[in-house]
Amino acid sequence: MPELRRGPTNDRWVIVAPERAKRPSDFAKRGSELDEQQPEGCPFCAGNEEMTPAETFRVANGKEWYVRVVPNKFAALQDYDDLGREAIEGFYDRMNGVGAHEVVVETPEHFCEIPDLPAEQIKRIIDAYIARLRELMTNPWFRYVILFRNHGKEAGASLLHPHSQIIATPVVPQEVRNSLNIARAYYESKERCLFCDVMLAEIRGGHRVVEENDGYVAWAPYASRFPFEFVIYPKAHSHDFTTLDDDQRLDLAWILKRSLQRLTLLLGDIPYNFVLKTTPNPVPRPGKPGYWKTLPYDYHWRIAVLPRLTRVAGFEWGTGFYINPMPPEDAARHLREVDLADA
Amino acid sequence: MPELRRGPTNDRWVIVAPERAKRPSDFAKRGSELDEQQPEGCPFCAGNEEMTPAETFRVANGKEWYVRVVPNKFAALQDYDDLGREAIEGFYDRMNGVGAHEVVVETPEHFCEIPDLPAEQIKRIIDAYIARLRELMTNPWFRYVILFRNHGKEAGASLLHPHSQIIATPVVPQEVRNSLNIARAYYESKERCLFCDVMLAEIRGGHRVVEENDGYVAWAPYASRFPFEFVIYPKAHSHDFTTLDDDQRLDLAWILKRSLQRLTLLLGDIPYNFVLKTTPNPVPRPGKPGYWKTLPYDYHWRIAVLPRLTRVAGFEWGTGFYINPMPPEDAARHLREVDLADA
Repeated sequence: MPELRRGPTNDRWVIVAPERAKRPSDFAKRGSELDEQQPEGCPFCAGNEEMTPAETFRVANGKEWYVRVVPNKFAALQDYDDLGREAIEGFYDRMNGVGAHEVVVETPEHFCEIPDLPAEQIKRIIDAYIARLRELMTNPWFRYVILFRNHGKEAGASLLHPHSQIIATPVVPQEVRNSLNIARAYYESKERCLFCDVMLAEIRGGHRVVEENDGYVAWAPYASRFPFEFVIYPKAHSHDFTTLDDDQRLDLAWILKRSLQRLTLLLGDIPYNFVLKTTPNPVPRPGKPGYWKTLPYDYHWRIAVLPRLTRVAGFEWGTGFYINPMPPEDAARHLREVDLADA
Repeated sequence: MPELRRGPTNDRWVIVAPERAKRPSDFAKRGSELDEQQPEGCPFCAGNEEMTPAETFRVANGKEWYVRVVPNKFAALQDYDDLGREAIEGFYDRMNGVGAHEVVVETPEHFCEIPDLPAEQIKRIIDAYIARLRELMTNPWFRYVILFRNHGKEAGASLLHPHSQIIATPVVPQEVRNSLNIARAYYESKERCLFCDVMLAEIRGGHRVVEENDGYVAWAPYASRFPFEFVIYPKAHSHDFTTLDDDQRLDLAWILKRSLQRLTLLLGDIPYNFVLKTTPNPVPRPGKPGYWKTLPYDYHWRIAVLPRLTRVAGFEWGTGFYINPMPPEDAARHLREVDLADA
C-alpha cells in the first residue's frame, strides 16, 4: 500500500510508493529509449486492449473506440476506505496512499501526437477528461484531482503511445493551496478574480500572447520558469474545468492543437509536461475539518504547458528559484511567428 | 543584465538570464556527453588557469593550488549597485539580477570525485566555501548565499571536472522563508530548535541513520522526495555554516566523504545534487524593510544530498507533491550495509 508522508520542517507531502521487489541497483539502470517502442506489444494500441486493466471510461462508436481510460497498472495511489491519518514517531504525519491513478489513452494509434490529431479527436479526449474528473470528484476521500501529460522521456514518459494521466489525492496539494490563498486574499480586497485581471492585462498588452480564439487565450507568463512555457486560460471566468459545454470543449481542443503545433514547428519534437489546474473537489462533508471551502472566485482553471529544455539542478532544488534563459516576451514572439500553414 | 521577476499568482521569483545570441533551435540541441570531456582544454585543470576569470580565492601551497574559486563565466546574477525594484505593467514585480555566481574548483585533477579525495582535501574545499560565503554575506545587496553541487548531466552539470557553485541572491528564497517560518513558530511554542529535536529523534530511532561521527549525523528524511536522499546535520546547534572551526570542518569532510562513498559503492556513479542550507545573511541595515531578522534558533544549517534517479514529471510540477519509489528506511539500511572497506 502506498503511503503519504509529511515531515515537520516543510509542508510538503510525499507519496512513498515502493515498486515491487526493486533492488537498489535497479534504480541506477537507464530506461529503454521511447522511440524504440513499436505498436507490437504496446498496451495502448488498438487490438491489445486485454493488456490493460478494465476500462473506467471509453469514447467509442460501436465497437471502434476513440479514447479509453484505464487504471494505471503501477498506481501511485489506490482506492481504499480508510485514510489512517496518524502521527508517527512524534514528529511525522502519515496517511494511507488513498486515491486513484488512471491513464487516458488519447488515440488508438501509436504514432499520432496532439498537433496531428483532428480537433474533433482532441475534443473526445477532453470529454474523457471531464467524465473521469466528474466521477472522481464525488469520492468523499478525494480532495483534489490532477490531470497531466508527460511527453518525451526527459518529461517523465515511460510509454511512447500518446496518453495522459489522472491522479486523485486525499489532500489539496501545497502549490494549489498557496495559489488559492493568494487569490482569496485578492478577491477579498478587490472583489475581482485575480486570474481574470491578469488575463485581461495580458490580452491588452499582447506581447506575451501566443494564440487566441473565441473562448481561450494562451500566453507566456511574465515569470516563466521554463523556456517557451505557456498557459491557456478560459476567457469566461470559471473555477471548475468540468463545467465546460460542447462549444467550449471544441474551442479548447483547437487552442491546444494550435499552440502545441507552434511549439513543435519551432522546436521539433521536444519533451514537455502539461498540467491542468482546477478547483479542489467540492466539500462532501461540510462539518469535517480539513476540507477546502472553495468559493468560485478563489480560482480560475487553466492549463500550463512546460517544455523541458533546461535541467533542474541544485540551485532550484535548494531555493525553489528557477533560472530561465529565454525571456517570455521573446518566446511568445517566436511562437507567434510560426506559420501554421507549414503544419 | 539578468532580471528577477515575480508573478502575482504565486510567490515565486524567477531569474530571467538570457544567454547571448541563443536562437530557439539552440534550446532543442542536446549537450555533449560529460564523460567525453578530457583534461586537454578543460578550464578547471591545472595548467589552464588562464581560461577562467580572475580568482576570488585560492587554497594553495606556494605556486601549487589545491582549490580555486572563480567567477562563473556564464553568471546567472551579476554585481551591480542598483536593485531597481519596481512594479511592471501593474501586476508584476521585477528587480535587476543583482548577485554573484562563482565556481569552486575542488581539485586540480580532472578525474577525482569527492569519495576519492583525501579528507584533508575535502576540508580545503570547505575552507574555500566558508571564505567565500563570509565575504559574500557582507555585501549589503545580497540577502542569501546558496552553495550547491551538480554531479552528472542529469543533475545539471555541464563540466565533468569536479566543482561546486555559489550563488548570492538579492532575496531570501521562498523555500528558505517557508522553513524559517515553520521553525520560528516551533521555537516560539517550545523554546527549542525544531531541527535539533528532529535530529535527536532520528539518532535515537536509528533506523534511518546512514552515517555518524563526533560532529555530524546523516540520515534519510522521513518524507524523502527522492530515492536514497539524505541530509547531514551538525550535532551541535548552529544556524550559520560559516562559524565552523577546524575540527568541525574536518569532521564534515569525513562524513561527506564516507556518505558519498556509500552512495557510489551501492549505486555506481549516479547523478546527484547537494545543497547547503544556511541562515540568511545578517541584516546590514536594520531600518530597511524586507530584510530577514534571523534569530539563532530559526534555523539549523545542513546539507541535503539529492540523488537524481527518478524523473520529475507533470504531477510534481503541478502539485509540488513527489512520488518516491524507495522507502527511506530501506534506503538507509542499504546505504548502512555498504562495506566501506571495499572503497
